[in-house]
Amino acid sequence: MFTRTLSAVAVSALVLSSGTAYAQTAPKPEPLIIQEQGSFAVGGSVSVTPGTYDNNAPTAAGQALHGDHAYVFYQKPQNPKALPIVMLHGAFQSARSWETTPDGREGFQNIFLRKGFSTYLVDQPRRGRAGNSTVAATIEPTPYDQLFFDQFRLGKWPDYFQNVQFDRSPEALDQFLRSVTPNTGPYDANVISDAMSALFDKTGPGILFTHSQAGGPGWLTAIKNTNVTGIVALEPGSGFIFPEGEVPADMPSAAGTLKGEVVPVADFEKLTKLPIIIYYGDNFPIEPTSERGRDNWRVRLAMAKLWVDTVNKHGGDATVVHLPDVGIKGGTHFLMSDLNNVEIADQVSKFLADKKLD
Amino acid sequence: MFTRTLSAVAVSALVLSSGTAYAQTAPKPEPLIIQEQGSFAVGGSVSVTPGTYDNNAPTAAGQALHGDHAYVFYQKPQNPKALPIVMLHGAFQSARSWETTPDGREGFQNIFLRKGFSTYLVDQPRRGRAGNSTVAATIEPTPYDQLFFDQFRLGKWPDYFQNVQFDRSPEALDQFLRSVTPNTGPYDANVISDAMSALFDKTGPGILFTHSQAGGPGWLTAIKNTNVTGIVALEPGSGFIFPEGEVPADMPSAAGTLKGEVVPVADFEKLTKLPIIIYYGDNFPIEPTSERGRDNWRVRLAMAKLWVDTVNKHGGDATVVHLPDVGIKGGTHFLMSDLNNVEIADQVSKFLADKKLD
Repeated sequence: MFTRTLSAVAVSALVLSSGTAYAQTAPKPEPLIIQEQGSFAVGGSVSVTPGTYDNNAPTAAGQALHGDHAYVFYQKPQNPKALPIVMLHGAFQSARSWETTPDGREGFQNIFLRKGFSTYLVDQPRRGRAGNSTVAATIEPTPYDQLFFDQFRLGKWPDYFQNVQFDRSPEALDQFLRSVTPNTGPYDANVISDAMSALFDKTGPGILFTHSQAGGPGWLTAIKNTNVTGIVALEPGSGFIFPEGEVPADMPSAAGTLKGEVVPVADFEKLTKLPIIIYYGDNFPIEPTSERGRDNWRVRLAMAKLWVDTVNKHGGDATVVHLPDVGIKGGTHFLMSDLNNVEIADQVSKFLADKKLD
Repeated sequence: MFTRTLSAVAVSALVLSSGTAYAQTAPKPEPLIIQEQGSFAVGGSVSVTPGTYDNNAPTAAGQALHGDHAYVFYQKPQNPKALPIVMLHGAFQSARSWETTPDGREGFQNIFLRKGFSTYLVDQPRRGRAGNSTVAATIEPTPYDQLFFDQFRLGKWPDYFQNVQFDRSPEALDQFLRSVTPNTGPYDANVISDAMSALFDKTGPGILFTHSQAGGPGWLTAIKNTNVTGIVALEPGSGFIFPEGEVPADMPSAAGTLKGEVVPVADFEKLTKLPIIIYYGDNFPIEPTSERGRDNWRVRLAMAKLWVDTVNKHGGDATVVHLPDVGIKGGTHFLMSDLNNVEIADQVSKFLADKKLD
C-alpha cells in the first residue's frame, strides 16, 4: 500500500505537470460546427395495470408505465457523411463512455464528429437516462472499484500495468470509477436490441460501435435490422452467438466459464452481410493464467477468433484485431477513451474507409 | 375513452400537418458553433468495505464504491457570456428535460447556447447517468402515466386542457412519458446540493436554473456556494426553506400537505445576496379545488409567494411570476419544453438582463 501511494503520487505529479504543459502549448481544438443536436427516446413498451384510474385518488389501477426504451443524444455536423455512427456502451456504463475521457480529453463522440460523422449516443434500456424498466430491480451499492481496476485492465490493483494507456493521476481514476452506473432493471439483450433496431429504423443505414457487454446486443441488432451497415466492436465481452451445431466448447477461465450461445443459422447468416471488425487491447495472455482480471479476456479473445472464423466460413467479412499484434500496446478494456484513443480512432477510420462506410 | 381517442386523433392530425408545414417552411436553424463540449462527474463520496481485497477471488471485502456524484454534460459556444447556466432537472427526470422538447423542437439547452451562454446540464446524484448510490434502493415499475398527465398539468386525464402549451400528438405524449427515469438511491437534497456546490466550485460564478423538485436543492446550493449568482426556478415543488420562527402554517391540499422547512437565519440570509425569480404556469386555481393535479400547484404557488416575501423582508431580491398574470397562458409544469418555450426563455432573458447576469 505504501509503495502504491508513493508511486501514484510520484507518477501523478509527472502526469499532471506534463498535462498542464500540454494544455498550455497544444493548439486549441477547432470549434465543432453542429447543424443539429438533440435527444429522444426510441423503442420500448407500455405496461398497463388493470382497473380504472381515479384522477383524485390515484393508485396503480388503470395507470400505465412507459419503459424499456433507449435514450439517444445525437449531433449532426455540417455536411455529414452519409452514414451516422451509433455508439452503444457496455456493462455498468452509459453513453458517457464515448464522451470526455477520464483524463479530460475528447472521446469518440467529438473525434468522430470531427471526422464528419453524425453521432448517436445511446443509454440502453434500463440504464442511465433510459431508466424506466417494466421489470423491477433492487440496486445494492456494490463495491467494485478494485474488481473494475483489474477486470478493465488498468493493472493489477493497486499497481498499474507498466505500459497502460491510462492516465495515472488520482483524478483520472476517480472520473473513471464515477462513470459506473447500475442497471435499473434486469439486463436483457433482446430488450436492448429491440430498442436499437427501432433506433436504426429512425436513423436509416448507419454504423454501429459497441463496447464490451454491448457486443451481444450489437449482433442481435444487425440480425433484426438491415440498416446496420457495419459493426465496430471494442472488446466484446459476452453474447457470442453461433449457428446451431457450431457452438464451440465452453471456455473455463479464472473469471468463470464463457459459453457460446446458439441462434438459428438463418439469423446467424444475416451477420455475413456486413463488414465487422473486433478490437482487443493489451495486457492479457494467450495461455491460461490464474490472474482473474486478465484470464477473463484470454477466453474472450479466443472465442472472438472462433466467432470470426465461423462468420467468414458462412461467407461473411469479419476481422478480429489483437492490437499488440499490430504494434499498439497498453490498451485497456476502454479502448475508446485510452490515452491513445486518437490512434484507435484512426484504426477504425481505416476500416471504415476500406469497407466504403465513410 | 371514445371521446378522448377521437379528439386526440383529430387534433393530432391538425398538429402533425401544421408541424410538417412548419418543418418545410421554417428556415433551418443556424448551426451551433461549439468551442468545447464534454462531460464529467463532480462531487460525491467513496464508501469502503473493510477487509482485504483478493484480486483473484474478489468479494466486497476491501473494495470501494464511488457514488453520490453528479454527472454533467457541458457545451461552450464561441465567445461565451461571462456566466454559464447550470440546469438541474426535477423529480423523475434527468438532464433530458432541458434538451429536445417532447414534440421535437429545441429545448433550453440549445436556446440558451444560441443566446451565447455556456450550458451545464446535470444528472443529479442517484439519477440517470449519475446512478451509483452509496445507499441501496429498490426500483418498482410504478405506473404513473395518468398521474403525471394530471400532476404535470397537461390536462385532466384523458383530456388536455383547452389552452395547454403541449403538442397533442400521441408521439409527443410518448416522448414526454419516456423522459421519466427513476431514483437509483434515496432522494437526498443535501447529497444533491453538495454535488451541485462542487460543480459551482468548478464552473466559477454562474446562474442556476432549477425545475420542480430541484427548487429545494437549488436554494441549498446557493447557501453552500457564493458562486451561484442568480436562480431561475421553474415551478419549484418542494424544499421551501424559512428562517427559524418564520415557517408558515402547513398548507393542506387535495394532493397532500405542503410544509415549509426550517433553516438557520444565517443560512437563509445567504439567499438575499442574489437575484431569484420563480415562474409558475397555468391551469390551476387560487382557491382550493378537489382536483388533485391542480390543487397541488395552488399550495405551491401560495407557499412560493410567502417565501419570496420572506426573502425580500430580509433584504433580498426575489420575485414570483404567475405567468397567466402577465398574459402567458396554458403553461404546463414543464415550462422549458412547452410549445411557447422560446417565449418563456425570452422572459428569463429579460430577467437576466435586468439583473446584469448576461
